Amino acid sequence: MRLSKRAAHEMRSVSFERNIAKHAEGSCLVKFGDTHVLCTASLEARIPAWQRNNNQGWITAEYGMLPRSTGERMRREAVSGKQSGRVLEIQRLIGRSLRAVVDLKALGGKQIILDCDVLQADGGTRTAAITGAWVALYDCLSWMQQRQMILRDKVLKDHVAAISCGIVKNMPILDLNYEEDASAQTDANFVMTGKGGIVEIQGTAETAPFSEEELSVLITMARKGIHRLVELQKLAVV
Amino acid sequence: MRLSKRAAHEMRSVSFERNIAKHAEGSCLVKFGDTHVLCTASLEARIPAWQRNNNQGWITAEYGMLPRSTGERMRREAVSGKQSGRVLEIQRLIGRSLRAVVDLKALGGKQIILDCDVLQADGGTRTAAITGAWVALYDCLSWMQQRQMILRDKVLKDHVAAISCGIVKNMPILDLNYEEDASAQTDANFVMTGKGGIVEIQGTAETAPFSEEELSVLITMARKGIHRLVELQKLAVV
Amino acid sequence: MRLSKRAAHEMRSVSFERNIAKHAEGSCLVKFGDTHVLCTASLEARIPAWQRNNNQGWITAEYGMLPRSTGERMRREAVSGKQSGRVLEIQRLIGRSLRAVVDLKALGGKQIILDCDVLQADGGTRTAAITGAWVALYDCLSWMQQRQMILRDKVLKDHVAAISCGIVKNMPILDLNYEEDASAQTDANFVMTGKGGIVEIQGTAETAPFSEEELSVLITMARKGIHRLVELQKLAVV
Amino acid sequence: MRLSKRAAHEMRSVSFERNIAKHAEGSCLVKFGDTHVLCTASLEARIPAWQRNNNQGWITAEYGMLPRSTGERMRREAVSGKQSGRVLEIQRLIGRSLRAVVDLKALGGKQIILDCDVLQADGGTRTAAITGAWVALYDCLSWMQQRQMILRDKVLKDHVAAISCGIVKNMPILDLNYEEDASAQTDANFVMTGKGGIVEIQGTAETAPFSEEELSVLITMARKGIHRLVELQKLAVV
Amino acid sequence: MRLSKRAAHEMRSVSFERNIAKHAEGSCLVKFGDTHVLCTASLEARIPAWQRNNNQGWITAEYGMLPRSTGERMRREAVSGKQSGRVLEIQRLIGRSLRAVVDLKALGGKQIILDCDVLQADGGTRTAAITGAWVALYDCLSWMQQRQMILRDKVLKDHVAAISCGIVKNMPILDLNYEEDASAQTDANFVMTGKGGIVEIQGTAETAPFSEEELSVLITMARKGIHRLVELQKLAVV
Amino acid sequence: MRLSKRAAHEMRSVSFERNIAKHAEGSCLVKFGDTHVLCTASLEARIPAWQRNNNQGWITAEYGMLPRSTGERMRREAVSGKQSGRVLEIQRLIGRSLRAVVDLKALGGKQIILDCDVLQADGGTRTAAITGAWVALYDCLSWMQQRQMILRDKVLKDHVAAISCGIVKNMPILDLNYEEDASAQTDANFVMTGKGGIVEIQGTAETAPFSEEELSVLITMARKGIHRLVELQKLAVV
Repeated sequence: MRLSKRAAHEMRSVSFERNIAKHAEGSCLVKFGDTHVLCTASLEARIPAWQRNNNQGWITAEYGMLPRSTGERMRREAVSGKQSGRVLEIQRLIGRSLRAVVDLKALGGKQIILDCDVLQADGGTRTAAITGAWVALYDCLSWMQQRQMILRDKVLKDHVAAISCGIVKNMPILDLNYEEDASAQTDANFVMTGKGGIVEIQGTAETAPFSEEELSVLITMARKGIHRLVELQKLAVV
Repeated sequence: MRLSKRAAHEMRSVSFERNIAKHAEGSCLVKFGDTHVLCTASLEARIPAWQRNNNQGWITAEYGMLPRSTGERMRREAVSGKQSGRVLEIQRLIGRSLRAVVDLKALGGKQIILDCDVLQADGGTRTAAITGAWVALYDCLSWMQQRQMILRDKVLKDHVAAISCGIVKNMPILDLNYEEDASAQTDANFVMTGKGGIVEIQGTAETAPFSEEELSVLITMARKGIHRLVELQKLAVV
Repeated sequence: MRLSKRAAHEMRSVSFERNIAKHAEGSCLVKFGDTHVLCTASLEARIPAWQRNNNQGWITAEYGMLPRSTGERMRREAVSGKQSGRVLEIQRLIGRSLRAVVDLKALGGKQIILDCDVLQADGGTRTAAITGAWVALYDCLSWMQQRQMILRDKVLKDHVAAISCGIVKNMPILDLNYEEDASAQTDANFVMTGKGGIVEIQGTAETAPFSEEELSVLITMARKGIHRLVELQKLAVV
Repeated sequence: MRLSKRAAHEMRSVSFERNIAKHAEGSCLVKFGDTHVLCTASLEARIPAWQRNNNQGWITAEYGMLPRSTGERMRREAVSGKQSGRVLEIQRLIGRSLRAVVDLKALGGKQIILDCDVLQADGGTRTAAITGAWVALYDCLSWMQQRQMILRDKVLKDHVAAISCGIVKNMPILDLNYEEDASAQTDANFVMTGKGGIVEIQGTAETAPFSEEELSVLITMARKGIHRLVELQKLAVV
Repeated sequence: MRLSKRAAHEMRSVSFERNIAKHAEGSCLVKFGDTHVLCTASLEARIPAWQRNNNQGWITAEYGMLPRSTGERMRREAVSGKQSGRVLEIQRLIGRSLRAVVDLKALGGKQIILDCDVLQADGGTRTAAITGAWVALYDCLSWMQQRQMILRDKVLKDHVAAISCGIVKNMPILDLNYEEDASAQTDANFVMTGKGGIVEIQGTAETAPFSEEELSVLITMARKGIHRLVELQKLAVV
Repeated sequence: MRLSKRAAHEMRSVSFERNIAKHAEGSCLVKFGDTHVLCTASLEARIPAWQRNNNQGWITAEYGMLPRSTGERMRREAVSGKQSGRVLEIQRLIGRSLRAVVDLKALGGKQIILDCDVLQADGGTRTAAITGAWVALYDCLSWMQQRQMILRDKVLKDHVAAISCGIVKNMPILDLNYEEDASAQTDANFVMTGKGGIVEIQGTAETAPFSEEELSVLITMARKGIHRLVELQKLAVV
């Protein structure tokens, strides 16, 4: 029995609430159970300096947590004066994941910034952020298409979504909440496209090394979860 | 006619959604029209070093804006590495305002941190933050009372709420939205208690100096608005 | 009897020493009793980037305290690596106050930076700074007029000065020194023009909320003080 | 044919030079071809505050690059004033990897800091750093054993080493140099123990998603490379 | 003929104004011509952590320049967020120079911080700072002696003063102003005690290397200047 | 007898290893006994903004120490977020020293950055850095000459090298190691050209002031040492 009372391959209830931020070109409040992430997509007129001669656009992401999104209040990042290694690592991952399904050439010298801010955390914030950011990006690209700036389906080549897996008490489980994550022997995050290609895989042994067989079980489980997330994304944007 | 189509003394629709953050001891999503602020109250075991010999507790506040809470995306504060003068000024104001209705001695060496994070901004974020933080604080103190840590009504002596007023095209108006705020000749924020005492008053001439008579009109208008906010707070916490 | 032995409406002795900094286009050492602030006005060829398309000049202020201007030595701001919230709040106030009496269009794309550095503090540093900065600005504008850059009286529309008031032991008093400030129930700062218009009003309840009647008494008292300061400014610049 | 002229599964020449830093308790200059990393292990009397009540020791890592370790000179990190996201990500990985083969309880309240400084970079700096840090750690633990502080083989449970793999022009290759890394479709880093357990796996699609079959080929290739690195570690410390 | 119209070995007019800062235990406004430095000596109850086990007191110095002390306004150090290399170099020099004439054991676990803030700069700010700091320190130690904390003459073993020399157009000159300093071939600062011992010597070739003979001429010139400064210090503190 | 067992005027064994960093235009690992400094010379296409209108090139230096180059591990500078006063002082000295033998006009608008990173420290890191940086600079200029960018011998007018001297137990000694440096009464660093001109002299009394005669002895000793270093530089670059 999982700590979360869920079956091994059972995900939390997932929802997407679009148009949650009136100023943003695209936005989505994504919930994976008690993990709530507000994703906005902002169209910027300018791209970063180091991209200027590449004749293409750019997609980047930033990630943050509200101070009391967590069980114990965290120090506000603007007060500590810098983003932690964990935050930088996550926002780099979100950016890479979304860029994997975007044709940057087709973006025409524009930049889109995906802000993923965790309002409430209960494990899996990075996977929820990637999955929700796709919806915000979709809406931002629709907004641009309505203004004849781009063709959305030329820019956005596929879905992308992410899910965590782990091994807890020797049982492989899907979509860990905080409590499960804290007691996992092995912890892995998977990012895949709608067509099933792997975009990113990050597996870490927390208490003991894991085997290739175990990794294989986790990938199969993740693939099913991501397939379900992509279906939900499709329902959300129709 | 106001830019917002409202009558001169008409406030925006105001709502309080309690228990919005599952980890916080008290929380409230306050909305003044399209201005949405997530307020959490976090109980901390420790008080700041400079308060330790005072034999009392402490209340402090922090304020932030999500990058795309505004019309143009703002730089993330954790990236710029410091809080702006405006942010520091607002969070000092929120802290002073709430401390004005709290008996710090009765808090018994504990600290409560009020985090006010703007999810969406349309003018009046500081007044919404103060008004919503009171609700989050109320709930945090109830939580403490349930655990026999304090007597809530000994700690919390009164309500406190805040509202903005301004003069736009020579007309005094209440509860300015962003557009009105940007075109105001005079801009003032008032913080008052449930009993009607003034806790804080900040008036600024934006384009031309104002007179004592004009100030007096604004105070009267603000008093009515704050009276209404306190009634709504009462309804919210019953 | 006041802690300072002064009558309720009696200000400290005020003096302005002009041309105190040989490099600056305008400068003034202003003293409100034991509060000494060195104000310089520096003409800059460039205005801030965000003002460039506005076809006008700009006035801004910076404020600082020498480490041993205070009773206990303060940490040097260059060492702590940032300006405190209090410092940022004060320098924003000084800038707004001086801009209230300046026609920025008439400044012709130039920027003037007003540096107010507290050499010795005994309460009321911000009010002394505003009052002295006006003199430094006047001299800077005269310097510019001598070089046919502007017409001083087109740029500088009026005087501006500031004074603090407060309620100590239920007695309203004018121009608080540090000791009085530390024991005030209510503390307010007023900025007014030579013609008597209110530019800025900031009132804070330190120990108990105050009433509109008390505020009114303080405004009347402040008006007299500021009238006197403006007379002294006039004498200083003849 | 690889850009490096090596066979697909051929690693660069690898060497370990021990005792390279006279002050450190353990040190190793590790070379993977033209990638040179100076690893030192420093015994610290104190462990981080958040570890103090855990009744165990701690191992952490820091990573840096000399400004001209790279083809174009990089800005010195001490000048830019912070560590980049990439640097933080790598040093977190090094720390996790080494902790995976250490019994922290057996370290007895001590901390060991592994500093990995890249003197010259040509791809694979993180894998060289992990592999070399193991040697520096081994020597540090021997130093401690000689002083009766610990039993080295109780603390250090196994070898750990790391290697990169990637797919370049559809060919899976092992131990990429900079040029190969820059043109890889898929890029993966593997950390494994001497017994063959997986400690960390990080795979990223650079230009197109990859399949589970491709990942499987890379794991097999990595396993052989890490087996070879562990043999070389054994030769180095006899 | 010197740029300053002075004779080669002629110093600027030097003055010391004591008790210039009412809060400080010792203070002195020192003027070397148009170079004005406000020096305060602050007694601190605590010494730096790294000095705690040395069973002695500590003297340290901090140095700063007001933004408009210079011909062109400098960026405020609190805004730039750090002290420049030049500032750090100077304050280290001031601290070393004063410690050279102090018996730290006799200070009894106390720390004195010497703040040297340049109100107006015209070359030689560091030499003026050292020379004036000695007076502020003297007064601080007298203050402590009056309170039976120390014996001043046991702590302060000698005078210390400093002067600059340089070679301009092949002529050795004493006490350079800014204009002379900017055109010097060789620039040197000397710190000596009342008894004539050298505490610090810093000579730099600006345009061409200098010879031992030239250095010797400068030392002789400096010795006379410092002898004169020590006489003035004696007159100042009687 | 010296702590290092060397004769008073005996230097440590000195070596230069060129071409140590494959990416750099010039590089040199210099060793003064156990002090090892990796010096690289990097050609930059751009010069600093403040040099742009001077119609010349620029040479600058940066200095750093690896965390475990020292007996006790130092905090990594990139982590502390700034360079210490000592580091800034040393890198300014290195830059001045090298510029003293360079014709910046002949550099043709290019900048060369000399990075001096201490791999292992045992006293005299700044003198080793200057001496080794000359070799790296020489090789960088040769690299430029091969590409017809400059004439090396027009740019590089002379050798420059540096050595430390000190007085330990009243005995003047040359080239102090860490232990000797820590116990010196007087500590001095000298930078001279191949022709024997003095570029920089820095003498500090550590425990007691020193006399002109003592300084003279140190200069003579330093001159011999630097003469030897220049001979070794010549042998290194043939």
